[in-house]
Amino acid sequence: MREWEKDLDQKLLYALPVIVFGLMAIGFALYLAKDVLSKDQGTPGMQDISNRIFEGAIAYLNRQYRTIFILAIVVAILMGVLVAIFENSHQAERGIITSLAFLAGALLSGLSGFIGMYVAVKSNVRTAAAAQHGIGPALTIALRGGAVSGFLVMALGLMGVLGVYAVVYQFAEGDLSTVAETPFWIVGFAFGASFVALFAQLGGGIYTKAADVGADLVGKIEAGIPEDDPRNPAVIADLVGDNVGDCAGRGADIFESSTAEIIGAMILGVALYQASGGDPGSRDIAWIFFPLVVGAFGLLASMVGVLFVRPGAEVKDPMGELNKGFYVTAGLSFVFLTVICLTMLPEGGWQFAICGWIGILTSFAFVYITQYYTAGSWRPVKEIAEASKTGPATNIISGISVGFETTGLPAITISVALLSSYWLGESVDAFAGMADATISSGIFGTAVATMGMLMTAAYILAMDTFGPITDNAGGIAEMSGAPESVRAVTDELDSVGNTTKALTKGYAVGSASLAAFLLFSAFLDEIERFSGEAIVRVVNIAEPTVFVGGLIGATLVFVFSSLAIRAVGRAAGDMIEEVRRQFREDPGIMAGTSIPDYRRCVDISVRSALREMIAPGVLAITVPILVGVILKWEAAAGMLMVGTIVGVLMAIVLNNGGGAWDNAKKYIEAGFLKDAEGNVLGKGSEAHAAAVVGDTVGDPWKDTAGPSLHVLIKLLATITLVLAPLFV
Amino acid sequence: MREWEKDLDQKLLYALPVIVFGLMAIGFALYLAKDVLSKDQGTPGMQDISNRIFEGAIAYLNRQYRTIFILAIVVAILMGVLVAIFENSHQAERGIITSLAFLAGALLSGLSGFIGMYVAVKSNVRTAAAAQHGIGPALTIALRGGAVSGFLVMALGLMGVLGVYAVVYQFAEGDLSTVAETPFWIVGFAFGASFVALFAQLGGGIYTKAADVGADLVGKIEAGIPEDDPRNPAVIADLVGDNVGDCAGRGADIFESSTAEIIGAMILGVALYQASGGDPGSRDIAWIFFPLVVGAFGLLASMVGVLFVRPGAEVKDPMGELNKGFYVTAGLSFVFLTVICLTMLPEGGWQFAICGWIGILTSFAFVYITQYYTAGSWRPVKEIAEASKTGPATNIISGISVGFETTGLPAITISVALLSSYWLGESVDAFAGMADATISSGIFGTAVATMGMLMTAAYILAMDTFGPITDNAGGIAEMSGAPESVRAVTDELDSVGNTTKALTKGYAVGSASLAAFLLFSAFLDEIERFSGEAIVRVVNIAEPTVFVGGLIGATLVFVFSSLAIRAVGRAAGDMIEEVRRQFREDPGIMAGTSIPDYRRCVDISVRSALREMIAPGVLAITVPILVGVILKWEAAAGMLMVGTIVGVLMAIVLNNGGGAWDNAKKYIEAGFLKDAEGNVLGKGSEAHAAAVVGDTVGDPWKDTAGPSLHVLIKLLATITLVLAPLFV
Repeated sequence: MREWEKDLDQKLLYALPVIVFGLMAIGFALYLAKDVLSKDQGTPGMQDISNRIFEGAIAYLNRQYRTIFILAIVVAILMGVLVAIFENSHQAERGIITSLAFLAGALLSGLSGFIGMYVAVKSNVRTAAAAQHGIGPALTIALRGGAVSGFLVMALGLMGVLGVYAVVYQFAEGDLSTVAETPFWIVGFAFGASFVALFAQLGGGIYTKAADVGADLVGKIEAGIPEDDPRNPAVIADLVGDNVGDCAGRGADIFESSTAEIIGAMILGVALYQASGGDPGSRDIAWIFFPLVVGAFGLLASMVGVLFVRPGAEVKDPMGELNKGFYVTAGLSFVFLTVICLTMLPEGGWQFAICGWIGILTSFAFVYITQYYTAGSWRPVKEIAEASKTGPATNIISGISVGFETTGLPAITISVALLSSYWLGESVDAFAGMADATISSGIFGTAVATMGMLMTAAYILAMDTFGPITDNAGGIAEMSGAPESVRAVTDELDSVGNTTKALTKGYAVGSASLAAFLLFSAFLDEIERFSGEAIVRVVNIAEPTVFVGGLIGATLVFVFSSLAIRAVGRAAGDMIEEVRRQFREDPGIMAGTSIPDYRRCVDISVRSALREMIAPGVLAITVPILVGVILKWEAAAGMLMVGTIVGVLMAIVLNNGGGAWDNAKKYIEAGFLKDAEGNVLGKGSEAHAAAVVGDTVGDPWKDTAGPSLHVLIKLLATITLVLAPLFV
Repeated sequence: MREWEKDLDQKLLYALPVIVFGLMAIGFALYLAKDVLSKDQGTPGMQDISNRIFEGAIAYLNRQYRTIFILAIVVAILMGVLVAIFENSHQAERGIITSLAFLAGALLSGLSGFIGMYVAVKSNVRTAAAAQHGIGPALTIALRGGAVSGFLVMALGLMGVLGVYAVVYQFAEGDLSTVAETPFWIVGFAFGASFVALFAQLGGGIYTKAADVGADLVGKIEAGIPEDDPRNPAVIADLVGDNVGDCAGRGADIFESSTAEIIGAMILGVALYQASGGDPGSRDIAWIFFPLVVGAFGLLASMVGVLFVRPGAEVKDPMGELNKGFYVTAGLSFVFLTVICLTMLPEGGWQFAICGWIGILTSFAFVYITQYYTAGSWRPVKEIAEASKTGPATNIISGISVGFETTGLPAITISVALLSSYWLGESVDAFAGMADATISSGIFGTAVATMGMLMTAAYILAMDTFGPITDNAGGIAEMSGAPESVRAVTDELDSVGNTTKALTKGYAVGSASLAAFLLFSAFLDEIERFSGEAIVRVVNIAEPTVFVGGLIGATLVFVFSSLAIRAVGRAAGDMIEEVRRQFREDPGIMAGTSIPDYRRCVDISVRSALREMIAPGVLAITVPILVGVILKWEAAAGMLMVGTIVGVLMAIVLNNGGGAWDNAKKYIEAGFLKDAEGNVLGKGSEAHAAAVVGDTVGDPWKDTAGPSLHVLIKLLATITLVLAPLFV
């Protein structure tokens, strides 16, 4: 019996839930897709608009993913060559495997984004049609349509990591790679996911806001027509954009998070595997397979959660319905995680279980903090709305102040979660006295917390994609002239969707920050593996190069955000010109006698988004490489660490600041703002105009730069992980 | 002969230039003050307005400094007690000395701010009067009035440090303290300076922008009267505010920078003093006294520079005149520094001289980068002006994008300056092979660069205070109905003043960033001294507590900025209410028949500023203490380092973003912006209205939050330095 056959049983045992629940989740996604697609497609008017959105979405996906894959192939080859040159053993094999793993990660990320978005843009019209029968059916379709994306992302991510692991290990047949070494070989997969996510989120973010800002500035302000008016040539591009950013973009973001964090945690597990004895046929390898198993049970919990949301036709509190499903998912995750820790891990089951609880609680904390800062019921949004009374300047000052303030509570949450899970992990008796293992055990504690947080990801992503589906459904209802009752339903769901989108961003940034430490540690492990010496995990910021690395990491976040925000401005400018041109050349459009050329606007959005994502994209990839190559690994570690801290905080500022501006506008539109005499200052008031300015400023914050920063943070981690051999 | 007498000669030699040039500078400041005060005070109308400004300024200074000193006494006592409890030798003495040094630093900072501002508000009317005779005389008065502040700040700072050093050493009489240990005893002085600077800059920043924003929003927008209209009750408060922020605030900022950096550099010198042999009677002590000597020669260079600016009545390029003085100062600094390094330092004269040149070049680089981003001749400001065509939202988006972008070049400059001066210092042969001394020598290289940058500080500060003086002169000319020719002169000088104010901020942030590393190292030295063990200067960000410290440091910057920005909004709200009340209750004001109650507006500004500075002030002081006490010194070091990085970058964003918005507005007002058909979009256009919104948003950025961050950064350093014994 060869070595790899000997320990097959134990590994198969751990692989089993991943395969079973992974396949189940894919089947479930297909079932949901079929279920949604079988539903009523609504009136011909609705179908017409939906078809235009669909066409636009496919046009975007084709062009965007073609570009990404050409870039990916170039990067894969370059990276493979570099790794092959700089690695110190099995050079050719490592180079090839890294390239192929990279392509696999890129491909699966692209695939799950593609299918998820395909179903999402098919679900919108069905949601609009179902809205004719009440809020319950519409809510169910939108959630299930969104869940397709959620489950594909998580299942393909999990199974992809397992598959790459299995192939590498198999291929190695005990010659090249061992159980313990394989996780280091597959980091290319996570980088592939990061690579696609960077461009999907950046391109998607630019696309969606260029269309939105462009449509608004010409339509609402210059031409004086309402939002979602079919006379506006940019309206279809705007509706396509909702999917592009929140469905495809966020899906790629979460695909990246989950795969990077799982592979990072597997790398961390290696140290504990070795400290426990390092017998590949025993439960020792649980340390390495743990993240995969937890992820698999997270899928199960999320499936149950989705199935739990079965409202009747009348729903009083649609957000409550979605929350019900989330609580079921979180509750089951809590139970599963505890059982897994206690039965699977050879040591410290209780300590690590509590770490997992901390992770789940952290996700709740982030969700509540996000709500506090971005929902109209609390002080921050009210403050911005009040400030709108004295005009746009005070609205902006107030919004920026709120945005900056929103970093406080999340930072405290992260600090508490990180330190407590680290100390719990460190306290596991079995590793006491083994200096390195104690540290690894502590960091593994933070990894378990991260995994706990990730368990609900499929459900969270379903709620997120619920957003663009209901948003589109509202647009379709509006544009097809559906009766008021239908629009009331879609409006209500749309507002719920705005909340879920904001919460998902909070969740994404929370998981990114909790994972920061684990990915950083994985990088140090990789440096140790490569250099072959114990560097005792010291990254000394008292060294000038490390300080400079940190400075550059922080600066990268600012400059990247600047480029992302500017990209929206420039792409929106292209859109504005095109809309003006159409209005000028065909007066029939405004008169309602001729149909505008929607397709051209979609096309322009696609092209501008592709063009504008290049500068920030190139910056994000080259700066870490330059720092690592010129200033070496310790400086790269400083860059990674400080870049992550600043990136997380800046993402929080941009996401929450943008969300707060958005909802301050909605607060005013809902008639909650009153002047000193008690008169309502609603739509059409000066205060409303000021709030619209704030909302527009917030658009590129919350939908372009903020989410792109999530991706940037993890890209920094995966790129340094993959290219570590160049930095020593 | 007792020990302190034995080595008196060498020390006296080094103290001599400090005493001589320090006294000369004070005499020079008094001479300039007398000279300025002897000048023509202008028309009765001018005098009336000037007297009102003077009254308002004195009211502010009295109330502000009384509050600060009550707080300072409380803090001094608390700090003394804490130090006495936690110190491990000479507890009572250390406690008392720290308290007294703190009070001395606070007192001298306050004194230089008080006198400087006194002369500044007396200079404004004389500048206005001199403007009747041409631009040259007015420029001379404004620069000389400003120079009073510049020389007092630098001379009192230098002599204060020397004096406290001498007293402690004398008091010790060889029993308690040695040459080498004394620098550690006097850190309280720097903290005292920081403490006053925090409140002076925060309070001053809030005051000035509350008055400015409040006056503008009611006056320009609601009442439709121009800026500096005597009918606006807030107009005097606005003019007082210019002095409060840019003269008293910036003076305290530079006083803090110079004393903290000098004391920090002296602490660093201790290690080299010991490595060189540690003979207190020999040139070894040059390492400790070097920063003082350099500072003294910087005063000399600046005096010559000021005297060099003697324009005739007709001046074509007033900025060029001021630059001439600056080039003279910088050139002399270059020469002096080289001579000092070569003759005074026992080792590595050339290497350290080049480090000093790097510092001087860095100050030039910062000045040019600031100009590029904030002056109308280049891409960034033009971009914002162009974006104003599509309304306030795009103006703001563009301004934020530019603000974020401005971090890039400064970060590269700092990185290059820091690494090159470190490597040069490290390369000094004499310390090769002595691990600790090599590092100290490298860090001393960065300290010399910082000192090189500081040499021009007195001149820079003179140019800065030139700003509020000319700004006030413009207001006085406007309000007293001076003829057009006079206003043309003051307008031109005012615009030069805007530039010098922006440059000073660039300079201040540049010096803060260059000094960050040296202050951080001084903190590590202090930890080593206190703990009595070599910690080999390791601050490991791979430790979770250090990471969390860094996270908290970065968050502190965001939340502090949020509070500072919000404070302006709230204080401006108070002002708006008061102005509205006066307009409502006395219709004679708008008719021009009765004089508004200026004093009440001044009073309200003072009170709101004092109230609003409490929250950010308390945050800035308590957070570092909490981190240090709870998470210990290494986490405090992480907080200091990451907090400094983020603080520097954020200050750059806020200063330059605000400056760019301001000048985009001016660019439009000057008629440079044209529409597609080539028509000028000037004052009164939609684009101008949009640019006004951007300017208002930029006000609290560039004049409150940004400058307060300079202070915060150094406060973090001095507070951790003083309280280091609590953190071990």
